[in-house]
Amino acid sequence: MTDASTRRPDDAFHVFDTTLRDGAQREGINLTVADKLTIARHLDDFGVGFIEGGWPGANPRDTEFFARARAELDFKHAQLVAFGATRRAGTRAADDPQLAALVDSGAPVVTLVAKSHDRHVELALRTTLAENLEMVRDSVAFLREQGRRVFIDCEHFFDGYRANPEYALAVVRTAHEAGADVVVLCDTNGGMLPGGVREIVAEVLAATGARLGIHAQDDTGCAVANTLAAVDAGATHVQCTANGYGERVGNANLFPVVGALEIKCGRGVLPPGKLAEMTRISHAIAEVVNLTPSTHQPYVGFSAFAHKAGLHASAIKVDPDLYQHIDPELVGNTMRMLVSDMAGRASIELKGRELGYDLSTDRDLAGRVVARVKEQELLGYTYEAADASFELLLHGEVHGRPAAYFTLESWRTISEQGPAGTAGNEATVKLWAKGERMIATGEGNGPVDALDRALRTALERIYPQLAKLELSDYKVRILEGQHGTGSKTRVLIESTDGSSTWSTVGVADNVIAASWLALQDAYAYGLLKAGVRPQD
Amino acid sequence: MTDASTRRPDDAFHVFDTTLRDGAQREGINLTVADKLTIARHLDDFGVGFIEGGWPGANPRDTEFFARARAELDFKHAQLVAFGATRRAGTRAADDPQLAALVDSGAPVVTLVAKSHDRHVELALRTTLAENLEMVRDSVAFLREQGRRVFIDCEHFFDGYRANPEYALAVVRTAHEAGADVVVLCDTNGGMLPGGVREIVAEVLAATGARLGIHAQDDTGCAVANTLAAVDAGATHVQCTANGYGERVGNANLFPVVGALEIKCGRGVLPPGKLAEMTRISHAIAEVVNLTPSTHQPYVGFSAFAHKAGLHASAIKVDPDLYQHIDPELVGNTMRMLVSDMAGRASIELKGRELGYDLSTDRDLAGRVVARVKEQELLGYTYEAADASFELLLHGEVHGRPAAYFTLESWRTISEQGPAGTAGNEATVKLWAKGERMIATGEGNGPVDALDRALRTALERIYPQLAKLELSDYKVRILEGQHGTGSKTRVLIESTDGSSTWSTVGVADNVIAASWLALQDAYAYGLLKAGVRPQD
Repeated sequence: MTDASTRRPDDAFHVFDTTLRDGAQREGINLTVADKLTIARHLDDFGVGFIEGGWPGANPRDTEFFARARAELDFKHAQLVAFGATRRAGTRAADDPQLAALVDSGAPVVTLVAKSHDRHVELALRTTLAENLEMVRDSVAFLREQGRRVFIDCEHFFDGYRANPEYALAVVRTAHEAGADVVVLCDTNGGMLPGGVREIVAEVLAATGARLGIHAQDDTGCAVANTLAAVDAGATHVQCTANGYGERVGNANLFPVVGALEIKCGRGVLPPGKLAEMTRISHAIAEVVNLTPSTHQPYVGFSAFAHKAGLHASAIKVDPDLYQHIDPELVGNTMRMLVSDMAGRASIELKGRELGYDLSTDRDLAGRVVARVKEQELLGYTYEAADASFELLLHGEVHGRPAAYFTLESWRTISEQGPAGTAGNEATVKLWAKGERMIATGEGNGPVDALDRALRTALERIYPQLAKLELSDYKVRILEGQHGTGSKTRVLIESTDGSSTWSTVGVADNVIAASWLALQDAYAYGLLKAGVRPQD
Repeated sequence: MTDASTRRPDDAFHVFDTTLRDGAQREGINLTVADKLTIARHLDDFGVGFIEGGWPGANPRDTEFFARARAELDFKHAQLVAFGATRRAGTRAADDPQLAALVDSGAPVVTLVAKSHDRHVELALRTTLAENLEMVRDSVAFLREQGRRVFIDCEHFFDGYRANPEYALAVVRTAHEAGADVVVLCDTNGGMLPGGVREIVAEVLAATGARLGIHAQDDTGCAVANTLAAVDAGATHVQCTANGYGERVGNANLFPVVGALEIKCGRGVLPPGKLAEMTRISHAIAEVVNLTPSTHQPYVGFSAFAHKAGLHASAIKVDPDLYQHIDPELVGNTMRMLVSDMAGRASIELKGRELGYDLSTDRDLAGRVVARVKEQELLGYTYEAADASFELLLHGEVHGRPAAYFTLESWRTISEQGPAGTAGNEATVKLWAKGERMIATGEGNGPVDALDRALRTALERIYPQLAKLELSDYKVRILEGQHGTGSKTRVLIESTDGSSTWSTVGVADNVIAASWLALQDAYAYGLLKAGVRPQD
């Protein structure tokens, strides 16, 4: 099946992705056929060996996916896999329409799910233990005759093995003897811990000699470790999903599994050079499924290599490897220094370098920036999550004045709720820009939304670049919680111009005034980025 | 130190929480002293043995936390821990102001961080290996003389042990011999896998005989498994954070660690009955730190026991345990079968019981409450951190009508900033109470503060009980973050009458309208609690 000229991964170890089948079970994920094709391309690009595309025949979308995959997908590394179940009890595999749909899908590889837990055979399949074995044998043999490579997913294997080891082993042996290439032990309810997985995989390997795979769910928070424990015990096939998407808590996350195998265990499981694509591909897939990429995901998260400098900034400058478990560039991620309330000159310099400002040569400038940051942090500002406001601060210190695009005269917001229960929000801004006085009023869902619309209306004629700018997220935090609504308020605004996003911060006595400041920075940064020269 | 009469957990195994110290390093978390006190109460309520509160002396906030903790916290289970570092090189522990601050904090237990990796001693501490050992010995001995129990965190232990095992072991032995009760092996950069952790913990235990602890970071996605591997190898002290908060990817997550120890390993590490509080406490802490609780968190996530019905629905009904790794009620979570449902009857009954309403005998009433909660949760309400609003909802269902003290005609807020930069906020409310029409205007630091003052002015003549009521905290969360400032807003308000506090929630299109709803509940609950009969 594998052929060196197509640069397929070595068959000795399988990285098997089931994002499109099991991953799609995650609550909140709903993939179109086009989404599935896009994700398949990303996964192939990453270099996984197998991509399970769905269950042809089970629903029209999956059937269509396989039809279009045949026509449109030209994998460089992966092979497409169709998923299905063993034949129904009391029938023949050759007569089972579901197995026929698997063959018709055109996928060269088929994964068949089989029951290996005696109680599930009785309760869910409602058949005898003997007939279940016959279903496995007959179904595998039929697909082999049709020229398909077959992997068997033994559902609820670990619980089944604990409940009735002889029967669970009989299922493994039957599948193996009928011609299944890999018998995958599935921790379907995700309740295992690594010690138990290692022990059972080793026992099954010794008892059957079958090639084994592992499919782990994350219900104990140990799916990655369980997968690695199975590999340690001799499994040579790992089933994972991108970003750990999957039912309930999720599946074993492809990225930390591959990261550990490649970097920690020295096992080359991807084509050379592909590991460095990991962060990009993780985020790209998150975009397709329309979930915000988890900022705290191992290896690929935005925060995965973020350091609150403080005490150790100077040591990090000397040797970052002392503080990081790997070089982030190995997986396409980058180190970030957070500007926190423990900020010192060293971390500000590192942060400046990240933004393209060399502060190390101008000690006066670096000192002024540190002083400004500390001053602002005393007021309640935080720049950790507001890179754009920090860059504006830096820009202001470098150029001796803030990047301003207008001069405010006044703003006002009115929110009201009348007797009929209807609420209204209106804002008016008065300002000067390029020598003109502008007055504009906006209405919105809330006072800040109204303020944003008023400001946009006032400015967009003279700054047409603002047309692309949009607020994409808005966070409010009340500081000094002991003083109730009289406290300071911090607002973080995330903005986008369609291709990149940036965050700004404002702190004031109340939510409207703080929002105004964050809004002002959001506009200023957007215009600065678009190359518009600040006002004199 | 431990005393059976205070029901402290057994000292043989330590569940040590560092949410307030290491967890607070997470990007985006910024805790006030009041937040820290609230989280400490939740953790004590959960039954952890040790709560590390921060680094007294390192910043004014942590110093204030320990001062207020002494006065305000009365732990049922936990002991408070202060964190600090070994003394500076070339000085004496008795002269070190940082160690003096640890003693002054009044915490009965101190965790000292020590270097155990030879290169870190040279690069970060810039001292000799011998002097570092002396710093450990001297600092531990000094704190023991001051009557403190001492735990040592050996930073970067695993990398250090691999680089120079003799030196790493010398640090462990020195701390142990100087009187440290527990030597905690820290995987500071989080790069370990469980196999390596197990091996090294076993070797260190055999070589030194010291009592060992584990502190795991999650950079490989294995922090929970690494923690459990260390326990398997003989560690009897686990350091975790609520919801896995922490620097970079995060720390070992307290909840799956405790869940595995209690349920999977049969080790009772919490006081009896506390495991079932896990879900509630996880979510409450997320609310305090103002982060959305992760829906896919093991054990406690909203999706952790969510089943897409389909194929196995009937089998799940016959025996849900076949499809779940544990009974979700063990950890206070619930099984969910349908896409949209949120709260389960069991948790509502539990909650009702907590508030003094027995819902188990009136199935109709319980059904109506569940239905109302689901309806409200679809709108964005959450009652986990808003007991008072939930009790008002319950009260409304029990009595057939809401507890209302006035009828609103209208409210209006105006916020403005003039040319001189001065901001103003004014609110006007018009309402009917006890047959009278009231109109009142208030000014405040922000629009919600102004609204609070206007409402108070309108009502305090006829409800003098309101004089004692004060807003003590205010939190805003934007829901559906993808739609910018046009999204739904959830406001949580904490109020106090001087002797107790209560929380209320409001959800609306904008922050002012949501605040109004939470304010209305805050007043209603305060009056209900003061024994004032609602209006007819």
